[in-house]
Amino acid sequence: MKVNQTKIKVRYVETDQMGIAHHSNYFPWFEVGRSEFVNELGMAYSEMERKGVFLPLIECGCRFKVPAKYEDEIIIKTYIEQFEPVKIRFKYEVIRESDFKLLAEGFTLHAFVDETFKPIILKKKNSEVWNILCSGIE
Amino acid sequence: MKVNQTKIKVRYVETDQMGIAHHSNYFPWFEVGRSEFVNELGMAYSEMERKGVFLPLIECGCRFKVPAKYEDEIIIKTYIEQFEPVKIRFKYEVIRESDFKLLAEGFTLHAFVDETFKPIILKKKNSEVWNILCSGIE
Amino acid sequence: MKVNQTKIKVRYVETDQMGIAHHSNYFPWFEVGRSEFVNELGMAYSEMERKGVFLPLIECGCRFKVPAKYEDEIIIKTYIEQFEPVKIRFKYEVIRESDFKLLAEGFTLHAFVDETFKPIILKKKNSEVWNILCSGIE
Amino acid sequence: MKVNQTKIKVRYVETDQMGIAHHSNYFPWFEVGRSEFVNELGMAYSEMERKGVFLPLIECGCRFKVPAKYEDEIIIKTYIEQFEPVKIRFKYEVIRESDFKLLAEGFTLHAFVDETFKPIILKKKNSEVWNILCSGIE
Repeated sequence: MKVNQTKIKVRYVETDQMGIAHHSNYFPWFEVGRSEFVNELGMAYSEMERKGVFLPLIECGCRFKVPAKYEDEIIIKTYIEQFEPVKIRFKYEVIRESDFKLLAEGFTLHAFVDETFKPIILKKKNSEVWNILCSGIE
Repeated sequence: MKVNQTKIKVRYVETDQMGIAHHSNYFPWFEVGRSEFVNELGMAYSEMERKGVFLPLIECGCRFKVPAKYEDEIIIKTYIEQFEPVKIRFKYEVIRESDFKLLAEGFTLHAFVDETFKPIILKKKNSEVWNILCSGIE
Repeated sequence: MKVNQTKIKVRYVETDQMGIAHHSNYFPWFEVGRSEFVNELGMAYSEMERKGVFLPLIECGCRFKVPAKYEDEIIIKTYIEQFEPVKIRFKYEVIRESDFKLLAEGFTLHAFVDETFKPIILKKKNSEVWNILCSGIE
Repeated sequence: MKVNQTKIKVRYVETDQMGIAHHSNYFPWFEVGRSEFVNELGMAYSEMERKGVFLPLIECGCRFKVPAKYEDEIIIKTYIEQFEPVKIRFKYEVIRESDFKLLAEGFTLHAFVDETFKPIILKKKNSEVWNILCSGIE
């Protein structure tokens, strides 16, 4: 099983008036991790979309343990938790680099669809993308 | 049990290159609903913060059924699902106004904390805020 | 000359750790105003895009006078400042509803392009959209 | 004169339904550049705020030349254009790394204020922060 580790730094715009990173930003961070995860397997996420494979979300969730703050350097750990013919589930951990504290963990569940948002059986529709994602769970 | 209904319209900035509202925006929408829910009970959310009561998230989640699109007019239905001495759970439904289709549903779970992020027992710390939130589950 | 007035309420997610609405949000607010301005002329902004007319930005700017805060109800005043065969310039005023204080003013300058981002002479490419926008400066 | 160069990668959430990075994101990108610029001078931006020096925006602007797209790796070049006792103006260039194309350029003009948003003469209020920013124009 492959695990991607991507670093980001909390941006000022991501803070709110509580002085912490607003919770909604964790999902774009997960997306950065997911994007880099797929990149590391050898295919740009945008390339996948150009091949007509889209991964809209069916569900997502996040548990927040310690707030991330402005300028915190954080590591997003991403891996595939579940991989099925018509959907895929990614799992994420958000870790503060300075002390390796787990700040949050979450998941996103995606359907495989084509450009018209019709569900596809990925292996049939595009075996190349299927094989690349398969290599992520080996 | 009170249910707040608040209308919003999907903004251009909220769309992504799939041509749908990006999933991360549903959490700010929930927040708008939550804010209006508390307002309807008779207290501005900002007033609650001025009284030293903050509601950072412990957990959140969302299930996406039908994508929201640019200029869609949507209704956010908000109500309290669970209310305990140290935490509160809100539930949300995102409904497309044109056909009353349920687009998504989600929840947010919040701790009660003070300005230093120390957990508080809301009833003890501020019975006024406690009573106002209580009126939401009657 | 038509002037659209659209109300919005500052969202929690739009605040930053200075306790004010982050400056980058004024551009999505301008966009809401622009969208409603076009709607008021009788055409949905999304309809314009379906007709193959897109308005990417060439330039934008904003002058901030008084910070907007969470839950502030604000009025976005939008009008066309300049309208030429290949571009259009909108002007915006952000006004706090409680005291009609001018919080900020800005502009956006847009090119007319087709779906491939090639510049178009709007009147030639789509006289219907041209006429509708023309009605905004009468 | 110091020039900071910071790399970022366009995020999916930053795209809109035109398939390009939404214009409002350039201001958070400028902010990342500004933050790294100050860091490079030897002081974290958050440290500056802890010392009671805040830099809210008075004005900002951006000219867009070529759209940035999802997964584009871009360089933000940041430098001080103007530095006065009560305000500072930063200039930014957004450059696509693959071909060093200038995608956009912009500026932000900031006032120096204290935690109560009262304007300050930076040199008098905090000579340490003043000196550090001064070193950026040497």
